[in-house]
Amino acid sequence: MKRLLDPDSLRALSRGSAVLGAGGGGDAYVTLLQALQATEDFGAVSLLDLDELPDDALIMPVAGVGATTVILEKFENGDEGVRLREQLEFVTGREVAALMAIEIGGGNALLPITWAARMGLPVVDADGIGRAFPEIPQVAMHLAGVPASPAVMTDERGNLVVFRTISGDWMERLQRAAVVEFGGAASSALFSLTAAKARAATVRNSVSKAIGIGEALAVATGSPVPALIKEMGAFELVTGKVLDVERHTTSGFVRGSVVIEGLGDDAGRLIRIELQNENLVALERGRVLASVPDLITVLDAETADAISTEVLRYGQRVTVIAFACNAVWRTERGIAVAGPRAFGYDFDYLPVEELAGATT
Amino acid sequence: MKRLLDPDSLRALSRGSAVLGAGGGGDAYVTLLQALQATEDFGAVSLLDLDELPDDALIMPVAGVGATTVILEKFENGDEGVRLREQLEFVTGREVAALMAIEIGGGNALLPITWAARMGLPVVDADGIGRAFPEIPQVAMHLAGVPASPAVMTDERGNLVVFRTISGDWMERLQRAAVVEFGGAASSALFSLTAAKARAATVRNSVSKAIGIGEALAVATGSPVPALIKEMGAFELVTGKVLDVERHTTSGFVRGSVVIEGLGDDAGRLIRIELQNENLVALERGRVLASVPDLITVLDAETADAISTEVLRYGQRVTVIAFACNAVWRTERGIAVAGPRAFGYDFDYLPVEELAGATT
Repeated sequence: MKRLLDPDSLRALSRGSAVLGAGGGGDAYVTLLQALQATEDFGAVSLLDLDELPDDALIMPVAGVGATTVILEKFENGDEGVRLREQLEFVTGREVAALMAIEIGGGNALLPITWAARMGLPVVDADGIGRAFPEIPQVAMHLAGVPASPAVMTDERGNLVVFRTISGDWMERLQRAAVVEFGGAASSALFSLTAAKARAATVRNSVSKAIGIGEALAVATGSPVPALIKEMGAFELVTGKVLDVERHTTSGFVRGSVVIEGLGDDAGRLIRIELQNENLVALERGRVLASVPDLITVLDAETADAISTEVLRYGQRVTVIAFACNAVWRTERGIAVAGPRAFGYDFDYLPVEELAGATT
Repeated sequence: MKRLLDPDSLRALSRGSAVLGAGGGGDAYVTLLQALQATEDFGAVSLLDLDELPDDALIMPVAGVGATTVILEKFENGDEGVRLREQLEFVTGREVAALMAIEIGGGNALLPITWAARMGLPVVDADGIGRAFPEIPQVAMHLAGVPASPAVMTDERGNLVVFRTISGDWMERLQRAAVVEFGGAASSALFSLTAAKARAATVRNSVSKAIGIGEALAVATGSPVPALIKEMGAFELVTGKVLDVERHTTSGFVRGSVVIEGLGDDAGRLIRIELQNENLVALERGRVLASVPDLITVLDAETADAISTEVLRYGQRVTVIAFACNAVWRTERGIAVAGPRAFGYDFDYLPVEELAGATT
């Protein structure tokens, strides 16, 4: 066991996963409260390295799926995790040994801990992305050829759907259609896999990494924003205030854009961030400052807490940072699945280091 | 065994089920060709009375779900039935003993025969409605408390979805959302039940009834329309020509209306039929001539062949008839589930006999 996830580490995870959410992954505060309550009620959850599990141990990756605006207000009834586990065990004929976050971004980093506490299961120190992405096939398991099927989805009412699709795209289409019908958010278990496969098909140590980010913020002396930038090896894109937010909840996603007006040294600059649950691209007068799969995160300029896309609003004082994604997303296949063109943009991906070098 | 479904009985079934489709149930001609081919390739299918099956024999009711305009053009790949059966047997842990039509209207009356031929299974002389209705809970099984879950849906690509819902309404919502994503049509097995339950929870002898209607048409001397009206105990609402068709394929349904201008004795009359896959209500200057759950069927004025809603077009010479639904739909619960108010109309159901008595 790497560590017991005590309340302090959960608080650090919440702050760190918000930074890794790149605006998405769902609210990390309510999910923190749920995780704190569940671990108080049922005991702390063990964080395991994938090497600690037998090769054939079945790992159940889980996530809230839907629009983050809805996830913020539409809570689970508490039985979702158990229902997903029971159904996954039924359809696979195997016992679930551990839970995993499909994405380490936002509240989805904490969700498996809440459920694991209630079930008495461990969570593994890994996730499917190393950040948050909006669409289902945008995970390392998909890149590695692990199928999303059989996937299970449930809502807070008790409805349950099992999906066996011919592709990741069909999984996205069918789960999204169900999510919309459920009211914009639901809980899902998909890409279940053995520990042996997970060792090569996930982003490892990402729970520890997110906790480390939160801990660095907690001990930062002076202004926390520079401390976080240093910790992340990030680039500051702009510091200013939110001038405009355009946000729609549609087709099971939050879509829109936000404009940030530079202040101080950045006076006169206007930066536009386009979003689909997560921040996708940052543009300045049409020039790309950073784009998926690299991470763009909007921070509170005072506290360095990440502000997720569903709670951005006019007048917030923010610093926008960008930093490198996990190496798996910089492969040809990674860029094809989650690069700018995968989101409909007509430009090629350039690493944030190159873009930032050219712009600062 | 009641009978072997030979080619002549399949042809009669196709004509009869089109009449019982009340405009819906999907095209009955292409499905006839499929049933003829399947029974030629694999042998004729046995039609069994429910009393011939052991009490615990599992019956798999099946249907094409979606917009009839789409069903007309989007064909199965041939494996759908086998896939549904395998998955239903997996999730129930039981062997399927026989297939049943969820609705005896249109092509959905023939679908189980095509699949049964390929699988070497019998079909039972019963269905879920005694006609066709557009929405999933509008079946006698639902009225009798038999759940639609676990339901299985598949498309021609090989995607497969299992639904376990908390209500019939949720089954309708989730299957419809999946159907829309599949392109407007898909195949489904739902309301699986034992023979013992089916004896009290289905409309019995409806396959024989549909065949009888087709046979009566085949032997009719003189004009077949009066012969059919006599056979069905039906009321003639109007004879004329189609003056206007408004038809949209939306949300997994065909919706719209058709206006028929009276000719001959009916000159000067304008009858409007509103439809959702099936013909729902017939109106004359705002007055209701007939409505769901009773059947309204548009016939070719020459041949008495039923014209389904997806192929109605300007200029067709037609006779519109209406006749009584199965008694199960005239119960309080039947009217609540499939009466005018269930389709959003603000009037109470009156039996066609009363309405026709008042108008002719």
